[in-house]
Amino acid sequence: MNEVEIKKPQESLQDRLAQVIDLLHRHKLVEDLTHRQEGMHHDRVENLVHRQNLAELQRKLDELHPADVAHILEALPLDDRLTVWQLVKSENDGDILLEVSDAVRENLIADMDDHELLAAAKEMDADELADLAPELPRDVVHELMETLDAQQRERVRSALSYEEDQVGALMDFEMVTIREDVSLEVVLRYLRRLKELPSHTDKLFVVDYDGVLKGVLPVKRLLVNDPEKQVAEVMANDPVSFHPDEDGYDAAQAFERYDLVSAPVVDKNGKLIGRLTIDEMVDLIREESESEVLSMAGLREEEDIFASVWKSLRNRWSWLAINLITAFIASRVIGLFEGSIEKLVALAALMPIVAGIGGNSGNQTITMIVRAMALDQVGTGNTQRLLRKELAVALVNGLVWGGVIGAVAYALYGSWSLGVVMTAAMTLNLLLAALMGVLIPMTLARLGRDPAMGASVMITAMTDSGGFFIFLGLATLFLL
Amino acid sequence: MNEVEIKKPQESLQDRLAQVIDLLHRHKLVEDLTHRQEGMHHDRVENLVHRQNLAELQRKLDELHPADVAHILEALPLDDRLTVWQLVKSENDGDILLEVSDAVRENLIADMDDHELLAAAKEMDADELADLAPELPRDVVHELMETLDAQQRERVRSALSYEEDQVGALMDFEMVTIREDVSLEVVLRYLRRLKELPSHTDKLFVVDYDGVLKGVLPVKRLLVNDPEKQVAEVMANDPVSFHPDEDGYDAAQAFERYDLVSAPVVDKNGKLIGRLTIDEMVDLIREESESEVLSMAGLREEEDIFASVWKSLRNRWSWLAINLITAFIASRVIGLFEGSIEKLVALAALMPIVAGIGGNSGNQTITMIVRAMALDQVGTGNTQRLLRKELAVALVNGLVWGGVIGAVAYALYGSWSLGVVMTAAMTLNLLLAALMGVLIPMTLARLGRDPAMGASVMITAMTDSGGFFIFLGLATLFLL
Repeated sequence: MNEVEIKKPQESLQDRLAQVIDLLHRHKLVEDLTHRQEGMHHDRVENLVHRQNLAELQRKLDELHPADVAHILEALPLDDRLTVWQLVKSENDGDILLEVSDAVRENLIADMDDHELLAAAKEMDADELADLAPELPRDVVHELMETLDAQQRERVRSALSYEEDQVGALMDFEMVTIREDVSLEVVLRYLRRLKELPSHTDKLFVVDYDGVLKGVLPVKRLLVNDPEKQVAEVMANDPVSFHPDEDGYDAAQAFERYDLVSAPVVDKNGKLIGRLTIDEMVDLIREESESEVLSMAGLREEEDIFASVWKSLRNRWSWLAINLITAFIASRVIGLFEGSIEKLVALAALMPIVAGIGGNSGNQTITMIVRAMALDQVGTGNTQRLLRKELAVALVNGLVWGGVIGAVAYALYGSWSLGVVMTAAMTLNLLLAALMGVLIPMTLARLGRDPAMGASVMITAMTDSGGFFIFLGLATLFLL
Repeated sequence: MNEVEIKKPQESLQDRLAQVIDLLHRHKLVEDLTHRQEGMHHDRVENLVHRQNLAELQRKLDELHPADVAHILEALPLDDRLTVWQLVKSENDGDILLEVSDAVRENLIADMDDHELLAAAKEMDADELADLAPELPRDVVHELMETLDAQQRERVRSALSYEEDQVGALMDFEMVTIREDVSLEVVLRYLRRLKELPSHTDKLFVVDYDGVLKGVLPVKRLLVNDPEKQVAEVMANDPVSFHPDEDGYDAAQAFERYDLVSAPVVDKNGKLIGRLTIDEMVDLIREESESEVLSMAGLREEEDIFASVWKSLRNRWSWLAINLITAFIASRVIGLFEGSIEKLVALAALMPIVAGIGGNSGNQTITMIVRAMALDQVGTGNTQRLLRKELAVALVNGLVWGGVIGAVAYALYGSWSLGVVMTAAMTLNLLLAALMGVLIPMTLARLGRDPAMGASVMITAMTDSGGFFIFLGLATLFLL
């Protein structure tokens, strides 16, 4: 659907979602009734109401932009999702499949037969096909490739040869190319013959006879300059361009930084091979920050919120298992000091405070560092300076809040020395939390791993075991 | 700087940052030497080297896009940051101030005198001035307003009258408006007379004599249609538009969903008053996801990674204090069972496992729910269904991993009943974690609060106190 033809719905997304759910429920209610009451007369009436509801829902869905339908599908539980999916006009199937999240797409594709899939994919561009191909059944992909012409097939193959987040997999092929030795007047006439321009065309690409990129002609300049001028006079000679094997996220940052709308992609020899557009980059920025949140909490990937229990379990088990091991280690640390706890049972009540505050404080530090690393603000080179600052913050926190908790411990158990041990343990554990909060992501980055990965689980493991050891160790040394 | 004039630097951002830091260090090293060695001869040589380094640094900075300088400033510690800031060409000051994060901007502004601030702000548009105004000294703002013409002043006032994240504060005023009863040829001639078009001009706004928006003319259509045609024939009649009091984040989602580059902002009467562009929206999407990550970890706001220790403390204290209280409550829960722990000290070693796994699992649930809510995928209406699914996941996890840990407890302490209590407590605490992981964000949303706010601290509080109570309670009932 053309961008400018979208009618902005009067209702908010939430409202529209509520309407769809309401219609679905009415539909189901009627279905239930029909099943229960078998009388001829009832049956006919309810069937009618049933059909009316579905028709209204279908009308509602037809009015919506594919992106809105995609959103509604994502927000519906599996059975409702498939009901709605069957009501969607099949000509929109392709657009919607491209908009939904991976988890939901898998769902919808599983519900379609080969014939429907082929029909949905028929209208797609090479780059869109490449996005979808990995999730389609093998024989459907095979059949699709047969229907393409040689150039299209080559483009799909090329897009598939890159990693999911490389520029080569993100670019599209809808470019308007012009020569530098013609006048703007000629360019304007040429464009009129095209009848339609690709979306996000804010610049035309100037190439020579070998297809090598010579510059870009921003549409803005085309419009304000004298049509008698040559393209070469007006074009920008050295535009921001990307290589297909660059990291897509770096490209997205460049789009964000330089406020780009589209940019050329060139190969090693400077030959124009594709184009990146801001809409793909926005999706990437969104995905990247999502995956950061999720991986910090120890979730493997974006989870369809209505995924089956089994899928959810698989997504969460790996980190839960790791957490189980770290919790077991913390437990064994306490086990070392069972003798001390037996003698002074207050230790058992106080030790989780030391561990808990350490975990919270460590999580604050690690969240900040991971954020700054994602934004390229800190590299492994800043480690020392960051460490000094975080340790200073931890020291103040330890003395202040550790002092408070020490006073409370004195008030509860009437022992000054217990209070002092508490304060000292808090301070040391906060220092440990700061140290680990900086070192864990830095080390992961140096090892070439994602610094966000399970950051929260790891820092908590450190501050738990560490906190118990420090507190119980100090108590054993000084109180018993 | 015009977008197309950016020369894409050959080096990556990290490389450029490293170069600047290197030059800064050489500069400082020389400064140190100069201070230490007071000999005339040395002095002169080092002064020379010193000046050469600074000159090289300045040359490097002059070549960079303001957005890149902003990035470098953000990534430098305070003293280096100010050194670099003083080397930056003053004509770029304004652009850079608009690009840096709030925390760093505060820093830079504090380093400038009124005269410099006025010079930097002189070139800004009304919407940019409004962005900056809240952070400028009062008399500078006053003086600035004096220099503006009536229309500009009105625009700044209007932009300042909206909340930071409302559409009215995010829009700009650089619009090209045309009438519907002219031919495309006339529009083309009109544009040529303008000499330059605002950035992100992908559509022209069609208004009537009262300034009411009648439609938009996409530049794409202007280019491909016959110049003889009237604007009214070619324009899109019912474009996506926004109101100034709408939430900016909703607008950003619409930009993302409908792949917009720019969109008109109209008042209640349909009068065109401004324009939103994708670059502002991308910044908003980025900020929004950042603030989600930060607030989940209990950080109040984006922290300048090199902020002073005192500033960091203020940013983190509110949630640390809350955490202290929740940790104290958990400690008192254990206190209730000191008698039981005295009799069976193994309980002290095992209880953190129950609490820890619960906390980890609860964090996974709450992260997922908060994400889905931010994307409008779930509202308070889905509570029941989500709860059922999360409880089912928790039940399986509890029985499986609780069973494992129960077996380990048996192996360690040789008591079957202790193992069974452990398994039961794990299962119940995971169920509690699932319940709270769904209910906390849903309740916050229903109360009109940010569902991400301190989510991690709160869920951990629940699973700690809850876990200790469940485990020690069951143990007291069945083991003693």
